[in-house]
Amino acid sequence: MLDATFTHDAQEPGLQASALTRTSARTLTEQLAERFASRIRDRLLPPGARLPSVRQCALQHDLNPSTVVAAYDQLIAQGLIEARRNRGFFVRERLSQARPGAGSTSPADLSRMTAPVSAATLIRGMFHPSGGKPQPGMGVLPPQWLESPFMASAVRKVTSAGVLADSSLRYGEPLGDAHLRRVLSQRLQDMGMPADPSHIITTVGATHALDIVSRTLLKPGDAVMVEEPGWAVEFARLDALGMRILPVPRGASGPDLAVMARYCEAHSPRLFVSVSVLHNPTGYSLSPGAAHRVLQLAQQHDFHIVEDDTYGHIAPEHATRMSVLDGLQRTFYVSGFAKILAPNWRVGYLASPPAWTERLLDTKLLATLTTPSLLERAMAHCIEQGQLRRHAERIRLRLDVARERSVKLAQAAGCRFVAEPAGLFGWVDTGVDTEPLAQRLLDEGYLIAPGALFHAARAPSTLMRINFATTQEAAFWRVFSRLRGSSA
Amino acid sequence: MLDATFTHDAQEPGLQASALTRTSARTLTEQLAERFASRIRDRLLPPGARLPSVRQCALQHDLNPSTVVAAYDQLIAQGLIEARRNRGFFVRERLSQARPGAGSTSPADLSRMTAPVSAATLIRGMFHPSGGKPQPGMGVLPPQWLESPFMASAVRKVTSAGVLADSSLRYGEPLGDAHLRRVLSQRLQDMGMPADPSHIITTVGATHALDIVSRTLLKPGDAVMVEEPGWAVEFARLDALGMRILPVPRGASGPDLAVMARYCEAHSPRLFVSVSVLHNPTGYSLSPGAAHRVLQLAQQHDFHIVEDDTYGHIAPEHATRMSVLDGLQRTFYVSGFAKILAPNWRVGYLASPPAWTERLLDTKLLATLTTPSLLERAMAHCIEQGQLRRHAERIRLRLDVARERSVKLAQAAGCRFVAEPAGLFGWVDTGVDTEPLAQRLLDEGYLIAPGALFHAARAPSTLMRINFATTQEAAFWRVFSRLRGSSA
Repeated sequence: MLDATFTHDAQEPGLQASALTRTSARTLTEQLAERFASRIRDRLLPPGARLPSVRQCALQHDLNPSTVVAAYDQLIAQGLIEARRNRGFFVRERLSQARPGAGSTSPADLSRMTAPVSAATLIRGMFHPSGGKPQPGMGVLPPQWLESPFMASAVRKVTSAGVLADSSLRYGEPLGDAHLRRVLSQRLQDMGMPADPSHIITTVGATHALDIVSRTLLKPGDAVMVEEPGWAVEFARLDALGMRILPVPRGASGPDLAVMARYCEAHSPRLFVSVSVLHNPTGYSLSPGAAHRVLQLAQQHDFHIVEDDTYGHIAPEHATRMSVLDGLQRTFYVSGFAKILAPNWRVGYLASPPAWTERLLDTKLLATLTTPSLLERAMAHCIEQGQLRRHAERIRLRLDVARERSVKLAQAAGCRFVAEPAGLFGWVDTGVDTEPLAQRLLDEGYLIAPGALFHAARAPSTLMRINFATTQEAAFWRVFSRLRGSSA
Repeated sequence: MLDATFTHDAQEPGLQASALTRTSARTLTEQLAERFASRIRDRLLPPGARLPSVRQCALQHDLNPSTVVAAYDQLIAQGLIEARRNRGFFVRERLSQARPGAGSTSPADLSRMTAPVSAATLIRGMFHPSGGKPQPGMGVLPPQWLESPFMASAVRKVTSAGVLADSSLRYGEPLGDAHLRRVLSQRLQDMGMPADPSHIITTVGATHALDIVSRTLLKPGDAVMVEEPGWAVEFARLDALGMRILPVPRGASGPDLAVMARYCEAHSPRLFVSVSVLHNPTGYSLSPGAAHRVLQLAQQHDFHIVEDDTYGHIAPEHATRMSVLDGLQRTFYVSGFAKILAPNWRVGYLASPPAWTERLLDTKLLATLTTPSLLERAMAHCIEQGQLRRHAERIRLRLDVARERSVKLAQAAGCRFVAEPAGLFGWVDTGVDTEPLAQRLLDEGYLIAPGALFHAARAPSTLMRINFATTQEAAFWRVFSRLRGSSA
């Protein structure tokens, strides 16, 4: 449940109701213009995106074309879209959206801007509260799945009288809460990693950990290998930091080693960023042999590896981590709790090769000073005594059931699984371009994650990522089939 | 009070007890070596720092010189210090501290490292829990001052059954908690700033806000004007981001405009970072005239301003903010709550010129995704109904009393105030080099903030920053006078 405070500021729900209403006090033109305007503001229609043609839009919404023309005219007048001769209507690039006179953006600023972070832009839509429907494009488990009695009890422990002041009134330790670091160290040692608490750094989620590693190891212009398909926020961050991104095709057992070897010869990359286990979006997990060969290559060409184990909690037992094979020598291990317990606590961490800890810590201090101890201590209580482990087991079982249902429904709807279904995400081929499909599904209140989101260079794609926990009901697939049919 | 969890991992207290004990099971050599080793590990003795000569050290601790020689030998064997012929003993630079074989730092890495962030390094010591004595070098108010009944009540509100799930189980809004942004918007509008909630972004403390602004506005190699003296973490962050730092002398009424004008002609700086009100470390506040002229210069030379109002809560009413005069056109306003309520909650924010909000938000998402709603909501409750304002009034009165006492004691101890005492910090001339003095005071359990910490290029300084809240007892000044006397 979202409370009133949460949504008050949004002005309108993140996802629009399905149909324009002819009985509304507002004209159909106004309703249509407002629907596009809100989607543009929320970045669900990113800068540069093409709007449907007047004819398509009129057909789709059963409107007179003149109504669509009038709505598009309103959007042009608001500076949100532009008409390009013989090409159609496009969302304006955001710099030109600056209110005239409101900012001080000068021509000099304009020329200095780096490329727009289109991935980050599109990702923004994914944080919008949905209208209550399960959202196929979500990157996390539904809140109902994450609920657990031990979370509230852990929070009570760290906020009780006498303890609250401790985690509020003075800065926490630079490395992060000592209790949490001990608990994490134990967890990592159980997995086979020699991670001492003094080489664990807590962060604002795994994202912050990845950011700290990039900022510490790299300088602008450095080459970095990433997996493709992969998580767009990672591409966008590296791009914003001025890195050269080298996409490595990710296969079922691991990254394409031949491509990596060629990159090493030609570009001397400094870093390889890998979601080794339950890779996003494919669900692939690295094989032990591939892990060994990636580490050999890293040794030979002297690059580092950051292993993003965000999905580690829902991974099968005994999945292979490079950080374990390598013993945290040239591997940085990153994880968090957004996929298993409390996305909004933003508790993440990294385990560092000992020689790098000091420099990583400097970067953390420069970026955020310390991190909030209160939530770190609560997390430590949740992990202790095995509550989180048992919770993760329950989630894995529940996800297995959901996955089986979703796979059947997806296949019945004509989707083909490009990767063997595993973990949280399915990577499916819909047979049609998923970006226009995404816009039409939005009209019906469904947010999907089109394949273009997962590529370093955005290009049309017939793929999409589905969240098994939110696609196990037939309702979505009925709408999907109908719209896909009319898109094909 | 620090609880056991908090300090457990530190192995030893941040500040050593005053004297070596002859009755200990450990030899004096071992005790002395361990004292230096712990100080080096804690960065209270930063890389490159010179240790006292054998003779000085022996005199100071009433030891046989051969004991000191043996202790230094142990430190050399541990790789912590090195002897330089005819020059003495120095803390080794941290790269050479890497345990052989433990890391993968290769010669290629060594040559790629940027300059060591010496300021960040030294700042690290300031987060160490002290042994209970009031610490003159502290940057925040003592925890006892910050305690308030309304904080616990606000936390209870946001962690009660039914509400906790809201701020835990799903990501918060990208901009930050809507309730907090509304409350902040009201606060800023009361100050005269046209800050709509949709142009306020919450952050992990003011540090994160400053980092987001720098990363969004600047690219490596850009010139940035900072105030000098100033806050070393800011210098270190800009340095780590690859910026060219242009230090502008800060006077009583504002920055040196002639120097700024020359920088503008010669270097076309993109940004000016200013703690306009209760400047750290001097306590100076910007005059209205100076604010106007800085803004004129910014207009003329097309640079932006980030106004760091970290001390705003303890500032006199009606202090001048550039963001108010400018109406957030080319000024970014940054503040937080570390100096008034809960440093460890790490709640900060920025108010942005409307044209920049979207890009700043992208940077926030790339760096940390969202920020934890729970603490933001608790903060909103603390601000509502005026509790925080009344708390701040009480703190200001208490600080006035403490300042008066501290000023008298400091002057009686032979210190001269370089700046008119105001706010939290005093900026005093001790007449002796404060870096060696800082080491000797550490031996007595006192952490001070030597003047060198506040300059872009570290150089010997006779200045130090004192915290008025922690220097109002005669005990510190007696020790100070004794050690200063023997240093002169």
